[in-house]
Amino acid sequence: MLKAPDQSMPLISDDLSATLANLFDQLRAQSFDGVGISRETYGPSETQAMELIERIALDHGLESDWDAARNLIVRLPGQQPSLAAIATGSHLDSVPQGGNFDGAAGVVAGLAALIVAKSQGVSKRSLEVYGLRGEESAWFGGPCYFGSRALFGLLGTNDLSSLHRDTGDTLAQQMQSCGADMELIKRQTVIRSPDEFHAWFELHIEQGPVLIAKEKPIGIVTGIRGNIRHRHVTCIGQAAHSGAVPRWLRHDAVLAMSELLMRLDEHWRVLLAWGEDLVFTTGIVETDAKEHAVSRVPGRVTFAIEYRSQDKKTIDSFSKLLETECQQIGEKRGVEFDFGPLVSTEPARMSEPLIALAKTQAQAAGIDYEIMPSGAGHDTAVFANAGVPATMIFVRNDKGSHNPEERMEMADFISGAEVLCRSMIVAANSHEDYRS
Amino acid sequence: MLKAPDQSMPLISDDLSATLANLFDQLRAQSFDGVGISRETYGPSETQAMELIERIALDHGLESDWDAARNLIVRLPGQQPSLAAIATGSHLDSVPQGGNFDGAAGVVAGLAALIVAKSQGVSKRSLEVYGLRGEESAWFGGPCYFGSRALFGLLGTNDLSSLHRDTGDTLAQQMQSCGADMELIKRQTVIRSPDEFHAWFELHIEQGPVLIAKEKPIGIVTGIRGNIRHRHVTCIGQAAHSGAVPRWLRHDAVLAMSELLMRLDEHWRVLLAWGEDLVFTTGIVETDAKEHAVSRVPGRVTFAIEYRSQDKKTIDSFSKLLETECQQIGEKRGVEFDFGPLVSTEPARMSEPLIALAKTQAQAAGIDYEIMPSGAGHDTAVFANAGVPATMIFVRNDKGSHNPEERMEMADFISGAEVLCRSMIVAANSHEDYRS
Repeated sequence: MLKAPDQSMPLISDDLSATLANLFDQLRAQSFDGVGISRETYGPSETQAMELIERIALDHGLESDWDAARNLIVRLPGQQPSLAAIATGSHLDSVPQGGNFDGAAGVVAGLAALIVAKSQGVSKRSLEVYGLRGEESAWFGGPCYFGSRALFGLLGTNDLSSLHRDTGDTLAQQMQSCGADMELIKRQTVIRSPDEFHAWFELHIEQGPVLIAKEKPIGIVTGIRGNIRHRHVTCIGQAAHSGAVPRWLRHDAVLAMSELLMRLDEHWRVLLAWGEDLVFTTGIVETDAKEHAVSRVPGRVTFAIEYRSQDKKTIDSFSKLLETECQQIGEKRGVEFDFGPLVSTEPARMSEPLIALAKTQAQAAGIDYEIMPSGAGHDTAVFANAGVPATMIFVRNDKGSHNPEERMEMADFISGAEVLCRSMIVAANSHEDYRS
Repeated sequence: MLKAPDQSMPLISDDLSATLANLFDQLRAQSFDGVGISRETYGPSETQAMELIERIALDHGLESDWDAARNLIVRLPGQQPSLAAIATGSHLDSVPQGGNFDGAAGVVAGLAALIVAKSQGVSKRSLEVYGLRGEESAWFGGPCYFGSRALFGLLGTNDLSSLHRDTGDTLAQQMQSCGADMELIKRQTVIRSPDEFHAWFELHIEQGPVLIAKEKPIGIVTGIRGNIRHRHVTCIGQAAHSGAVPRWLRHDAVLAMSELLMRLDEHWRVLLAWGEDLVFTTGIVETDAKEHAVSRVPGRVTFAIEYRSQDKKTIDSFSKLLETECQQIGEKRGVEFDFGPLVSTEPARMSEPLIALAKTQAQAAGIDYEIMPSGAGHDTAVFANAGVPATMIFVRNDKGSHNPEERMEMADFISGAEVLCRSMIVAANSHEDYRS
């Protein structure tokens, strides 16, 4: 039977590290598009990446399988195959002209964990690595997490009729071309019950700059932020002559918007000090180009508002605060705010026991870590919201993601993979309930 | 010799009022373009309006003349023609699809003043009404005040090579087609020396809502605001992932711009309470459409800034304040502001003695008035900055200007014309130096 990891010895050997570095190089070589890495959602380049992972897995004596959504599963069967599995994985697609590590790092790390586990003997529970399909929103105009959502029967008609950015094919056509069982997918059949997973881990490069700024190699993730997005907020004031209309007779839409943003920025500062998890962004601002004039008091401005939190209550409270502030500024400045349609995503809480497990194993391996939220969405949110106890391990990464400039050091990756590997091995022999 | 106006009797009779109303109707009929009024800068419709004014003037026994810039001059010669004249006038062009009173009201009021003065006998100084050409900036892409600037030899090569919005002809070609003496204009010959004007008045509809809000029929103008305009201010921060980058690592260009605008708005409020004359406007705001994403912390935003004052010192001080605030916000938020090119217009102070004269005459006629700045530019600024003692009389006007919706009541117009008429008659017999 598999032993608990030795306190000090690294489980991932230098030889295995070299194999993993080589695997990344092969992935890069086969997915390079001239500028960056392109592995298309349910496209041939994604399949090619999955086949490469499968070949290496088989070379190391692991088993492989493809599910009805054509996700790849690499498996190390346990002594008691009827027990719920310990699973990990990430996506194998990328954005167009993206980076090599965004997604693939989690699959390669999972492969490393199973190779190590196999070398140590057999655990009670089966260990699995998922190479998930179609996580990126870039290819089908917004919808995403196709592979993980298909797993739990969650792909709807809207998803399946989304159109490919270049070819105009529907997602359903694109999935079919990869051999997915569309009859089953369309009926929203559950391919894998959440109960079949005892724990889910996902290693991923950090898409923000926190680990760089904090000088920590890895992060352990407490939750994945949900969000509310208003793409088209309009502030309606009254257009006027900029020279001839005095301050007391103005209803300046841009100043009203600026006051709103400044109030929200200040609330944000205070709410962080208050201990809330929150980010708030206005990524788009536009006055009406048809009315553009330096000498016109702007009667109208449209802008976007997005706010995210790990905590649904924080999102809802910020929503109410926003409404109150708009009302007050509206009365003060004689303007109106129209929020237009709203799009929201639920946050996902990570499992407290799994966070604790990852922390313990990082400490045991002498690896420094940061406890942090995930601001970006991940397949793990789909697992967590389906009821699977889950957490994520972030790996320090410079220059952000979704671009060819991403920079992950192999040493940091190995630190993350080490923590993943140790945590999975412990979990594989555990009867602890990881639901927090 | 002309008598000083009787304290109570209106100088403009009901008969003359009816004639003036009829003249406005004729102007409207001949300039209607299907939507509003179009009298094109140095175009046939402007000439037609001038010829109509000339015909009415001649019908009433006044003299007429056309100068080298083809401005129309209606004249009532004085007993001492060598004395500097008392002149009034306004422009006879309009914006495309504009209103009937913007410009024309000042020429019609001047005509009324000369008709009244003629009926009262001969004054020492000559009285003149100018029908000025080309005041609007809409026809030649920005430059304006062509008729008044030509008068003082101030049209430069840049002006003369400006292109017509529709035909693509240069202003020089357009002026030539109206019979202007382009050899003389191009040499920047002074057509009329500022010394030949003892005082200049201009009646104009108010282009803002102040008189409506204050319930006053007329305004007496203390100065014409100058301005500084920055069409393309850029705030450069750093683009980032809206979910994954926390507040302390952001350099959000839109929030930095909002902070700048809120600080300036608050300074504006305080400076008004401090007694400064100031308006401040951001008419245009745009994030980069190529980078638009709800989930991107904006790394860049461009916006316009314009501020106006009657007082050059206020403009210059606000300019320095702006610079200081940008520097401070830049340091605080890790952003930079680039102000791009600057366009400025000098303010023009009105003559204190002429303001006092207009006030006295309004009081004598029992007409309520507001003392106020002009936020919009006018030909009178050209006269004042050339050294001619000048002031303006505003007439209450609903719905702003530069649109067919402008609303001037004839009763308010007659009140303004009455004050103009009385002031000119007093000035025509005065040796007072109106330079303040």
